[in-house]
Amino acid sequence: MQLPEALSRLIAEFRNLPAVGLKTATRYAYSIIDMSEDEINSFLEAIREAKDKVHFCTICGNYSETDICERCLTAEQNSICVVKEPKDISAFEKTGAYNGLYHVLHGTLDFQKGIGAEDIRIKELVSRLKGVSEIIIATNSDISGEMTAVYIANLIKPLGIKVTRLAHGLPMGSEIEYADEITLSKALNDRKEM
Amino acid sequence: MQLPEALSRLIAEFRNLPAVGLKTATRYAYSIIDMSEDEINSFLEAIREAKDKVHFCTICGNYSETDICERCLTAEQNSICVVKEPKDISAFEKTGAYNGLYHVLHGTLDFQKGIGAEDIRIKELVSRLKGVSEIIIATNSDISGEMTAVYIANLIKPLGIKVTRLAHGLPMGSEIEYADEITLSKALNDRKEM
Repeated sequence: MQLPEALSRLIAEFRNLPAVGLKTATRYAYSIIDMSEDEINSFLEAIREAKDKVHFCTICGNYSETDICERCLTAEQNSICVVKEPKDISAFEKTGAYNGLYHVLHGTLDFQKGIGAEDIRIKELVSRLKGVSEIIIATNSDISGEMTAVYIANLIKPLGIKVTRLAHGLPMGSEIEYADEITLSKALNDRKEM
Repeated sequence: MQLPEALSRLIAEFRNLPAVGLKTATRYAYSIIDMSEDEINSFLEAIREAKDKVHFCTICGNYSETDICERCLTAEQNSICVVKEPKDISAFEKTGAYNGLYHVLHGTLDFQKGIGAEDIRIKELVSRLKGVSEIIIATNSDISGEMTAVYIANLIKPLGIKVTRLAHGLPMGSEIEYADEITLSKALNDRKEM
């Protein structure tokens, strides 16, 4: 016996989500079949709407429903926290320990993968430095993240702007996205000048 | 800073999937935003189609795109394997050890939850007994599953039909859905008359 084709196809689609294997995808597909018509419509609409409405802020590169995100308009304007990806910002926001601006690089330098300075949003960062007294570099503590931090520090320090890096306290090789709030708060407070 | 509303809403929707918490739902939502337009359309279409096309076979109660599923039409007609849910059938199918019919109860007796014999597909099972020489009861080995097995055996044995139960070999309290193929094959081969 084969599964109905429509069910097999849905299972295959669910496997495109991050870290979803066959068993998990199958459970999700069964739960879709068991949902009411209203629940399905609400789910489909949420996906469609998120995809259509959520874009990148033209200044900081974070997700936003408007051209310029609220954070860029309302935050304290004298520091910029530089992260690799939008989801890293969510981790900071949970700490409540930072009120300044963010800047999303959308990647970090990786010469093995051919990702150079022109492939990530470094130029855009440099164009934002007016009135800024500190750049906090919060890239991951892996090789690519460290390399990017050093690159940005070398670029910006000569301009007379303080450049800091999150304090050690984050385990090496870990991802900022998964840090717990207390560790990340501490790392932010203990940041050191580069 | 708040997440864009459309993103928050999508995260909430993903949490309706089984065993999906906030972190997983957030990862899924981000991956949706990162998908291409084609990928999104394919995903949405698969959900819509599975929901629209997949119904229950009017005979056995398994998922089917047609009124009567292929299994009911083409399987050996002299035995019926009785399961709680459609996903239990998938577990059997992976063993390749059974060629007969299935019957999905869509639940098991549970007097605490007020689920009685008339709430699950027992009447439908009784109406299928013509030409059948064996009923294999493959409900889970929890209290509700055992109770249902005994109930069905008491109902059907007086009609002169052999009633068997999967052999012990499955750990007590475990779910058939998650049994490995070898254990489940063995349990099927060692089934005992009730």
